[in-house]
Amino acid sequence: MSPHSNSGLDIAPWKQIAELVASGDAEGLQAVCIEQGPREVARALGRLSEEDQQFLLTHLDEAIISQLFEEMADVQAAGLVVHMEPAEAATIIEEMGSSAAADLLGELDEARAEQIIAAMEPEAARHARLLTQYDDHVAGGLMVTEYLSYPASLTVNQVVEDMRSQKEKYKGYDVQYAYVLDEELRLAGVLVLRDLLLEPSGRHLSGIMRANPVHVIDQDSLEELEAFFESHSYLAVPVTNVEGKMLGVVTRRAVQEAAGDRADDMYLKSQGIMGGEELRSMPLLVRSYRRLSWLSINIVLNMIAASVIAFYEETLSAVIALAVFIPIISDMSGCSGNQAVAVTMRELTLGLIKPVDLFYVWSKEVTLGIINGIALGLLVALLAWVWKGNPYLGIVAGGALAMNTVIAVSIGGLIPLALKRMKMDPALAAGPILTTVTDMCGFFLVLSLASAMLPYLT
Amino acid sequence: MSPHSNSGLDIAPWKQIAELVASGDAEGLQAVCIEQGPREVARALGRLSEEDQQFLLTHLDEAIISQLFEEMADVQAAGLVVHMEPAEAATIIEEMGSSAAADLLGELDEARAEQIIAAMEPEAARHARLLTQYDDHVAGGLMVTEYLSYPASLTVNQVVEDMRSQKEKYKGYDVQYAYVLDEELRLAGVLVLRDLLLEPSGRHLSGIMRANPVHVIDQDSLEELEAFFESHSYLAVPVTNVEGKMLGVVTRRAVQEAAGDRADDMYLKSQGIMGGEELRSMPLLVRSYRRLSWLSINIVLNMIAASVIAFYEETLSAVIALAVFIPIISDMSGCSGNQAVAVTMRELTLGLIKPVDLFYVWSKEVTLGIINGIALGLLVALLAWVWKGNPYLGIVAGGALAMNTVIAVSIGGLIPLALKRMKMDPALAAGPILTTVTDMCGFFLVLSLASAMLPYLT
Repeated sequence: MSPHSNSGLDIAPWKQIAELVASGDAEGLQAVCIEQGPREVARALGRLSEEDQQFLLTHLDEAIISQLFEEMADVQAAGLVVHMEPAEAATIIEEMGSSAAADLLGELDEARAEQIIAAMEPEAARHARLLTQYDDHVAGGLMVTEYLSYPASLTVNQVVEDMRSQKEKYKGYDVQYAYVLDEELRLAGVLVLRDLLLEPSGRHLSGIMRANPVHVIDQDSLEELEAFFESHSYLAVPVTNVEGKMLGVVTRRAVQEAAGDRADDMYLKSQGIMGGEELRSMPLLVRSYRRLSWLSINIVLNMIAASVIAFYEETLSAVIALAVFIPIISDMSGCSGNQAVAVTMRELTLGLIKPVDLFYVWSKEVTLGIINGIALGLLVALLAWVWKGNPYLGIVAGGALAMNTVIAVSIGGLIPLALKRMKMDPALAAGPILTTVTDMCGFFLVLSLASAMLPYLT
Repeated sequence: MSPHSNSGLDIAPWKQIAELVASGDAEGLQAVCIEQGPREVARALGRLSEEDQQFLLTHLDEAIISQLFEEMADVQAAGLVVHMEPAEAATIIEEMGSSAAADLLGELDEARAEQIIAAMEPEAARHARLLTQYDDHVAGGLMVTEYLSYPASLTVNQVVEDMRSQKEKYKGYDVQYAYVLDEELRLAGVLVLRDLLLEPSGRHLSGIMRANPVHVIDQDSLEELEAFFESHSYLAVPVTNVEGKMLGVVTRRAVQEAAGDRADDMYLKSQGIMGGEELRSMPLLVRSYRRLSWLSINIVLNMIAASVIAFYEETLSAVIALAVFIPIISDMSGCSGNQAVAVTMRELTLGLIKPVDLFYVWSKEVTLGIINGIALGLLVALLAWVWKGNPYLGIVAGGALAMNTVIAVSIGGLIPLALKRMKMDPALAAGPILTTVTDMCGFFLVLSLASAMLPYLT
């Protein structure tokens, strides 16, 4: 698996693809895209003009495009689909796995998705309608509709026959189990495929299936699914509605993928990228608008926090050196608080704490905050004393930082729990709330301490 | 999969476990731990005293503890293992999957890990030594050593016989494929288990195996493995050394799990949690030290940045209102820069950009920075003008923020690429570098602009 030698040419693969598009070499394109794989084609697509993207997509086999769409980020694939004819998009999406197809359709606006679904084959359309109605992070949104199911009355031999004759169709299935359904299509049992190997061919499925199988409900959450796969060693679990009717299968893999997506999402949101992903291949104004909608909330919160400083203009003009310590206290408190936020988010994900555990978290943070506050405060105090030769300036700056560190870790540790209890997204809101509160407290502490000790500072 | 009814008691499961430990009810403990599953037991363990943890662990079946260790965070499991006798730890770790066992051993210090490995059965010890020698994020570190392999001369029937007779042993294997080895234990072919069902029982493996199978090398990186599974639809791939000797199997699942861990890790590091995870059940001084080691670097960088302000004390005391805008400019530039960092990190993960794409990223960021800079700058300028009735104050504060926004997104977009080229960890270092540079530039811009326009400001 060492990198391709690129037939001696030392040119980036995306440039190679771009040049083939520019020269209109359709055959060469197809070959290079297969050779380079979906990652490089996705990279190239992000750098092509809209017109060139269209040329590339119309000159690749539908099977290659559907594989490409499965592998690339949904948001990028959706950006390409919007420029396609619904019928063309439908042909490509039909070839994708049911779950990947639903994820992609979910990125489109509803009217566009419905146009495409309407152009799909009836069965694929039915599956797409079923899957797109669910949230991304419940069992229904994570399941696939490709699974094997048989009535209980069949024999081992009949099942093996079916598998043999439909070999081609089942090739793309992630087959570990087959499901046995009753007359009302309710889940009655699970067949482990290995058992088919080991059981006499005349036996009925009802005799070898595992009856009353574990299953999940379509509205079960990602956290419930993670707990399920932690305590069960299965590779997949059937999904039913509340009446027990079989709807699909959620694989362990899909749950792990979704958990990985959640972590990516948490990172992006914590850094101020909200409303899904941003890729630099998106239109400039869309990117600018999305980032600004986050920044504009932040700047208002920032102004509120900074207004505390305005109240102390007199103190500040008397001790102008304080202006140097104000951004230090603001930044350092933010850092300390963000560490506490991150640990809480992580422990929530691992299931080690729950939103009710406010006191446990607070008691663990406040002790740590005292230690770290004293350490950081002493450092700043020393710096202030050495710089201006006035120990009282050190007491003011260091004391404010020490106290504000305790406040910052307490708030940082608790905010995600409080937001979770209020059904808000902690990854998105914790940062701005934390910064605003710790800035206000920090500015207030340093400036009010300075006001109180003004005679010693001037 | 609705929550357990807890036999009518409305008490948190971890409290129930803690109470059983306190009352010394070993039988009740075993039953409750099985009922509640690994997540709740892990949660309870984090809240027990060291002594009570020992009581719990010595009164649970080894099989349950090994399952618990597989499911809980490695760092938490390692914290429990250090208090066990090596022989006891060895018995538990032997029962874990080879890859999970190696991950756990990797969290311990080397001497402790070696003591435990020395106490393990020879075969398990050999596997543990093989797997722990690899980095977590290369194929060798992600592979398992539980796989089926057969010489090419066997028949279908002999393989089925072996599978039947060793049913118990193979139960825990994640079996999709079996591997055919030559006399030197080099990988010669792959058997798809479904083929065993469909082929005559007398055929030799050499006739039905897929020869010259794709494989990866033990030192291939996580990114290479991701690319592999993107362009191949297999569930697992064999791992060989450079000479072709079969070493283990990497599953798609292990690669996806590792990618999820990388995302978690990126989030934690970006928020200032470095050196692996922190759980609140760890000793206070360890947690404090780990967080301080990050904060102490930050505070030094902060002081360097703030020293810019000290050079302009005269300007600042002449226009004390500037002190209100300094933290706003610092915070907002940090926010804008972090957004650019997050998008670059995401595009790197998706393979859409590579460390050489500096110009592409910069060109995309600078245009966006101009738009967002003007928007945010105008807002701040307006505020300053309205507040102090002086349009020049608005020009200084807004102008500085606008210019610094362009600088922040440019630096934020490029830093992760530069760090990656220097083989440094962008998730860890991007934040502090960004904040320091944008703070320095921001302070310099607003204060030097103010100095230049001083006559209009006073």
